[in-house]
Amino acid sequence: MAKSKFEYVREFESEETLLPNCWIVVRIDGKAFHKFSAKHNFDKPNDLRAISLMNKAAACVMQEYKDIVIAYGQSDEYSFVLRKVCTLYNRRKSKIMTYINSLFTSSYVYHWHNYFNEKKLKYPPCFDARVILYPTDQNLKDYLSWRQADCHINNLYNTTFWNLVLKGGLTPVEAEKKLCGTVSSDKNEILFSEFDINYNNEPEVFKKGTILLRKKLTHTNSDKYKTVILPFHIDLIKEEFWERNSEVIQMETCQKYEWPEDLPLPDLVSSQLHINVKNKVDIEAD
Amino acid sequence: MAKSKFEYVREFESEETLLPNCWIVVRIDGKAFHKFSAKHNFDKPNDLRAISLMNKAAACVMQEYKDIVIAYGQSDEYSFVLRKVCTLYNRRKSKIMTYINSLFTSSYVYHWHNYFNEKKLKYPPCFDARVILYPTDQNLKDYLSWRQADCHINNLYNTTFWNLVLKGGLTPVEAEKKLCGTVSSDKNEILFSEFDINYNNEPEVFKKGTILLRKKLTHTNSDKYKTVILPFHIDLIKEEFWERNSEVIQMETCQKYEWPEDLPLPDLVSSQLHINVKNKVDIEAD
Amino acid sequence: MAKSKFEYVREFESEETLLPNCWIVVRIDGKAFHKFSAKHNFDKPNDLRAISLMNKAAACVMQEYKDIVIAYGQSDEYSFVLRKVCTLYNRRKSKIMTYINSLFTSSYVYHWHNYFNEKKLKYPPCFDARVILYPTDQNLKDYLSWRQADCHINNLYNTTFWNLVLKGGLTPVEAEKKLCGTVSSDKNEILFSEFDINYNNEPEVFKKGTILLRKKLTHTNSDKYKTVILPFHIDLIKEEFWERNSEVIQMETCQKYEWPEDLPLPDLVSSQLHINVKNKVDIEAD
Amino acid sequence: MAKSKFEYVREFESEETLLPNCWIVVRIDGKAFHKFSAKHNFDKPNDLRAISLMNKAAACVMQEYKDIVIAYGQSDEYSFVLRKVCTLYNRRKSKIMTYINSLFTSSYVYHWHNYFNEKKLKYPPCFDARVILYPTDQNLKDYLSWRQADCHINNLYNTTFWNLVLKGGLTPVEAEKKLCGTVSSDKNEILFSEFDINYNNEPEVFKKGTILLRKKLTHTNSDKYKTVILPFHIDLIKEEFWERNSEVIQMETCQKYEWPEDLPLPDLVSSQLHINVKNKVDIEAD
Repeated sequence: MAKSKFEYVREFESEETLLPNCWIVVRIDGKAFHKFSAKHNFDKPNDLRAISLMNKAAACVMQEYKDIVIAYGQSDEYSFVLRKVCTLYNRRKSKIMTYINSLFTSSYVYHWHNYFNEKKLKYPPCFDARVILYPTDQNLKDYLSWRQADCHINNLYNTTFWNLVLKGGLTPVEAEKKLCGTVSSDKNEILFSEFDINYNNEPEVFKKGTILLRKKLTHTNSDKYKTVILPFHIDLIKEEFWERNSEVIQMETCQKYEWPEDLPLPDLVSSQLHINVKNKVDIEAD
Repeated sequence: MAKSKFEYVREFESEETLLPNCWIVVRIDGKAFHKFSAKHNFDKPNDLRAISLMNKAAACVMQEYKDIVIAYGQSDEYSFVLRKVCTLYNRRKSKIMTYINSLFTSSYVYHWHNYFNEKKLKYPPCFDARVILYPTDQNLKDYLSWRQADCHINNLYNTTFWNLVLKGGLTPVEAEKKLCGTVSSDKNEILFSEFDINYNNEPEVFKKGTILLRKKLTHTNSDKYKTVILPFHIDLIKEEFWERNSEVIQMETCQKYEWPEDLPLPDLVSSQLHINVKNKVDIEAD
Repeated sequence: MAKSKFEYVREFESEETLLPNCWIVVRIDGKAFHKFSAKHNFDKPNDLRAISLMNKAAACVMQEYKDIVIAYGQSDEYSFVLRKVCTLYNRRKSKIMTYINSLFTSSYVYHWHNYFNEKKLKYPPCFDARVILYPTDQNLKDYLSWRQADCHINNLYNTTFWNLVLKGGLTPVEAEKKLCGTVSSDKNEILFSEFDINYNNEPEVFKKGTILLRKKLTHTNSDKYKTVILPFHIDLIKEEFWERNSEVIQMETCQKYEWPEDLPLPDLVSSQLHINVKNKVDIEAD
Repeated sequence: MAKSKFEYVREFESEETLLPNCWIVVRIDGKAFHKFSAKHNFDKPNDLRAISLMNKAAACVMQEYKDIVIAYGQSDEYSFVLRKVCTLYNRRKSKIMTYINSLFTSSYVYHWHNYFNEKKLKYPPCFDARVILYPTDQNLKDYLSWRQADCHINNLYNTTFWNLVLKGGLTPVEAEKKLCGTVSSDKNEILFSEFDINYNNEPEVFKKGTILLRKKLTHTNSDKYKTVILPFHIDLIKEEFWERNSEVIQMETCQKYEWPEDLPLPDLVSSQLHINVKNKVDIEAD
């Protein structure tokens, strides 16, 4: 049973290394989540528990891999951005891709019951992953803008579709037919005239998706701080976002945020956190 | 918020396609399982619950992906072998690698409580994955033989090490020092003379690891059958294994196995199944 | 001018290694040879000087790289087949691809005047190259058969087209129109009825392209032999070819061929060589 | 002889596409040029004919591929830099790499006699090629600086070595031993004290290698101009080079250079050209 006789098979392994000095994006994506969300009776058009669980799983990944400077999630997908100078696993593509994907999946199943309580997970969900390299800061910003624009477009469609079905009494086929060929303004008009909904007033988390950033929380006049991962549901397409969170691109130390005096510094990120946080420099409104 | 302005970023995505007509091996491997097994008090040198959970997770993967004709697991790793002619996801490397890895991870966490009962999972475990191509049947057999030889070598070492520590009263450092430079026969001798253990009598599942094969179970004189995934703890290095399970390499329909009349055909693979199964052609003894 | 300050740029280099145990095919292909052949007044439909030069350049490559066991050329392309077990340049893809391509190009220009005499080369020709891996012997045979079938189809078309233009008085546009939608039998019929040409009697070098093989030449009753590269213009699609030249796939020592007593053993391969050679075992008829 | 039966083999071809928005460097390198230069009695330590031929071959490549904005050569190597936005052959790696390598090789052999006159080329030379991507302008400048620093280091060594051998009467082994462990200042001292050579006064083409740039030549007060490829033997490590030739990085239209009134605008780049050229903005001194 000499191992050495067979060890030649190791030569068939190969290892792709990611080009240095490029932003590394790992995007994970749910497999057949249309079916998965139906089987688990997700609220339509958006299920806040499901979104919070996605954010939790993503925060677990970001907690483990300090090279991730920003993450963006919407629907059943999440993008993780690793610093250009990152040398994690010597930039081996498979290692980075599969560890991040596996930890996300694992965290999703592990934390399920914290978000869905009594509702049991009926079968193990599954995510794929891909790695994309972006050579410049502008390419990276455009990538994230692409995903957020996609979020907006899909959410406007889904919000209109499900109102037509759930409140308007249309069958899914009828709703689909009605929306076929419509532009954004048409959908806004349907929502307003038929369901008295002003799309602009819909929750930001649905319209913008979730941005995870690493920030330092501190109490007023305190030297102590805690580095946590905070969720934001704001516009990242405008340049303003990148100016206010300049540490992402500059790869500087992350910013300090003031934390309410009457609350202890939190241990873990939660999707509710940001509601209470007031940034010293008043970054976000939500 | 025009999506099209940003869509150029898709051109940065690339897709590697796996060479046709080669065996595809996806090997997953636990991240820091030394620490993970310590944190969860796994039995030493082998924890049957942990092994059964690995087998269960692997069977879930094999159940989902019919292109997998054989899987082999030992320690915290599992290898899945996809047929040479497999066209799954058009042989896109990332898709195959990450879906299999994600589903394995997901199933591991999902089924944890069925194997560890009261013992809670303390944090989400994580696995990496790699893809390896083997052009010939012999290369593939040698790959699996390499992993099984590795299982044997590690198990003999671990069995001796942990007997020295748990029964022999040595510290881990002392045990390591004592085993340094020893060959197989030395370890067999230590086990026999010091602990009255004949290594040959150790459980096959520890010495051989687990082979998962797809087989058809049937009752005597019945036309009905059920295709299930069965675990085997037998030698795959000898050519005999490949002759008896010729459907693996030949990619033929899998074999029929006789199932005890007094038992209903099982619904799911379990690590206990094989104990009761008697193959019509008397393949395995365990 | 410290070199070390800049040496980090080496980390951006990457090296792809070709999967072991696969046949390596390097196919080179002329760039814009339609224009090149027009500028140099190549005979139509086939120019024997141009073909001989291609064969010469390919033989130079084969002479240099002993791992090449067979080469096949037609039109402005040549395929070189390296042994499965070849470890040339540690199977680094770029090295193998570019050295073979460069040496072919270099030899083509270097030997031009030996084949075209007074006719000067007007500008430097250019070839691209690609590498393809084939896991099995059958895949390799099918690859070469594909190229030879391509040679036949193109040559039948070109022979008919140029007879229509050169002897039939049609313009190229008219000839193209006439051949549009025709099948092989139609073209055979046009050649026979309009130009009294039996396509089967056309030279084998045009219909079959050129196969280069390494053979040992020897005089009768002599122990001495010379290993040379011989051109064959025979069918390689039929299994007979592979049986008679079994050393190609088997990677055995190449065969001995009897060389006429009244001729000295030749120093260099030439496209005329095979005309005089009588193989002891009567391999080829041409 | 149905081609279609074999066409499945095309699926084994794969195509790597180069990451967009990165500088593409193709570096070619002579195979066994130590032997090649010995066989052709190249002058030592530098042969001006050989350098001029390398420059000519590189200029032919640059003439054909307009995406090349700068090329740098020294010894038996040449680096070609293609614009970040280049879409040549859809950025297919093999195509770009092999076409450039083949055209360089072809031009080298084709133009040999123009530089070596009576001295015949004894056998076809051969070059390999590799492709390297650089995401930022600084990475690219550092790459070229690395090659130029390498040129300087090698030239200082070779100049000292060959003076010791040719004028100092040492054997190559003795010269090598004498230089072992020496630093730059030691070699400068040997050249000065033993051979009365001030290294600083050595020809710039030897010390700096050759930079090829595309420039517009024009006569004073003329609207007409001619775009030509000009050789420079100047320092590119200092930022000044990049300021004066800002079109390289900025990818703007190339600069106008004044051409002597008494000379016709030249048709082709030559290594002598730059000697006569006076840049309007006085860029280079040589």
